[in-house]
Amino acid sequence: MFIVQVSVHVKENAIESFRIASLENARMSVQEPGIARFDVLQNREDPSRFLLIEVYRKESDAADHKQTEHYKKWRDTVESMMAEPRQSTKYSNSFPDDSGWG
Amino acid sequence: MFIVQVSVHVKENAIESFRIASLENARMSVQEPGIARFDVLQNREDPSRFLLIEVYRKESDAADHKQTEHYKKWRDTVESMMAEPRQSTKYSNSFPDDSGWG
Repeated sequence: MFIVQVSVHVKENAIESFRIASLENARMSVQEPGIARFDVLQNREDPSRFLLIEVYRKESDAADHKQTEHYKKWRDTVESMMAEPRQSTKYSNSFPDDSGWG
Repeated sequence: MFIVQVSVHVKENAIESFRIASLENARMSVQEPGIARFDVLQNREDPSRFLLIEVYRKESDAADHKQTEHYKKWRDTVESMMAEPRQSTKYSNSFPDDSGWG
């Protein structure tokens, strides 16, 4: 799998708005055939920090995702909510193998 | 869910050994009733960097995991492989809800 982890730090007054916008984006994203999972995690000690763990079947599926209307809406909606630029890192799965991601 | 993400940076000569030890630990860990997922990811740009994403059903399951023989074996096996101390961060799931983790 082609896995992208995005670390997000939002402004204190934007925590709930970010969560709502990201849930909407995640619900749409998991309907894309190239997306196996699209997890949204919130830091338990600092709720202004989130992780998006985006599990694509192949690299081109990540590019396709960025062409969707729901991604563009999310991107534009959250732009003003960032406390600092998002950090994105690419991973491959050692465990489980490709059959273990739904 | 009670999700722990562990960031690991191993020595260059320990990459494959760490991967093997962590696969063995992950295969055993997902058999624990309190563990929904136990993903091992490897950084695509720097293969000496790994993420463990440990998805526990509740906080006490994380403590139980540390009492297992397979955890203790993994901990002792990888101790000398670290290039720097491991970083651990705790998260809750915003998406999907608790039914979406297997």
